[in-house]
Amino acid sequence: MPAPLEFFFDFSSPYAYLASHRIEPLAERHGRDVRWRPMMLGPALAATGGKPLVHLPLKGDYARRDLPRTARFLGIPFQMPGRFPQVTLAAARLFYWLEEQAPDRAVPFAQAVFETLFVHDQDVADRAVLGRLAIALEIDEAAALAAIDQPDVKEKLKTATAEAIGRGVFGSPFIFVDGEPFWGSDRLDQVDHWLTTGGC
Amino acid sequence: MPAPLEFFFDFSSPYAYLASHRIEPLAERHGRDVRWRPMMLGPALAATGGKPLVHLPLKGDYARRDLPRTARFLGIPFQMPGRFPQVTLAAARLFYWLEEQAPDRAVPFAQAVFETLFVHDQDVADRAVLGRLAIALEIDEAAALAAIDQPDVKEKLKTATAEAIGRGVFGSPFIFVDGEPFWGSDRLDQVDHWLTTGGC
Repeated sequence: MPAPLEFFFDFSSPYAYLASHRIEPLAERHGRDVRWRPMMLGPALAATGGKPLVHLPLKGDYARRDLPRTARFLGIPFQMPGRFPQVTLAAARLFYWLEEQAPDRAVPFAQAVFETLFVHDQDVADRAVLGRLAIALEIDEAAALAAIDQPDVKEKLKTATAEAIGRGVFGSPFIFVDGEPFWGSDRLDQVDHWLTTGGC
Repeated sequence: MPAPLEFFFDFSSPYAYLASHRIEPLAERHGRDVRWRPMMLGPALAATGGKPLVHLPLKGDYARRDLPRTARFLGIPFQMPGRFPQVTLAAARLFYWLEEQAPDRAVPFAQAVFETLFVHDQDVADRAVLGRLAIALEIDEAAALAAIDQPDVKEKLKTATAEAIGRGVFGSPFIFVDGEPFWGSDRLDQVDHWLTTGGC
């Protein structure tokens, strides 16, 4: 089987949320898996001189208009979170813990985190919220919450973020297809084309 | 007839070049005209704290990869200019002079400027190059070149740039459809959808 698509993102990124709805069916059409790689966008932006979109005066206002419009265009439910951006460190660490402990729950957990944030407007930095997500996916809540502070789990997220920065990731989502970089949810049509044409 | 689409751009913007290939047929499908509004992106970026894409370390490298790929995806001829970004002040002024003197030549001139820059990789800051474009469009070359330094012509470009900044334009291309802002050549599908659905 050919290599999976590598899907780097920060859970706090609304454009990554939009991409998360489309990337699995897209990959499946081409017989590919998706390797989900949550990361911390903050250090990546610090390394590249960027800033969170919504903190930029005009771009932020524009994004608040573009996001719900793009979601309607794509037919994806979306609500701009009241608290934004959120600290998604705990959620990202939990993903990597799950990837090892219960690999089949990792992607459903990631999808649930996105939905919690961008559909139900709940605070995914709140461990009680993460605990409820764990329960809904039949994951041991106490073990999950404890994992957030485990050094080996913290290390996995650091490693993923460092790898992303090393590979030139400066935004979210950022997708690699056999090494080819695609930045932004609005490049998924080109990812599709790339996979169809074998790299054009 | 409904209001024209307002197409703000800097001639030095390769994404604007890509949009320039698509916006006229798109507007025509919806019975709309396009009002081309060349502007100086530099002052708009200065006003919003932005920087030219290719001057940003990682984003610049990415754009140099994304641009030819996007052009292939869209089936549009493209070559990244050797000298980039170029000073497009003279070309933009000439556009506004033509708009008054020979309105039917203004858009063909703009398209020729884009092609000169992004297909033939010639320097559109070079007045000899602009003179040849004028001749090809049966425009009086001497009058055209003289117009570049006329105060009233300079003023038109300044006014267009000031208007763009006042309306929140922070990038190129930037399109308004009945007041609704769309940033980037990758939003043309949404412009199409917006026009089809009457604003959704």
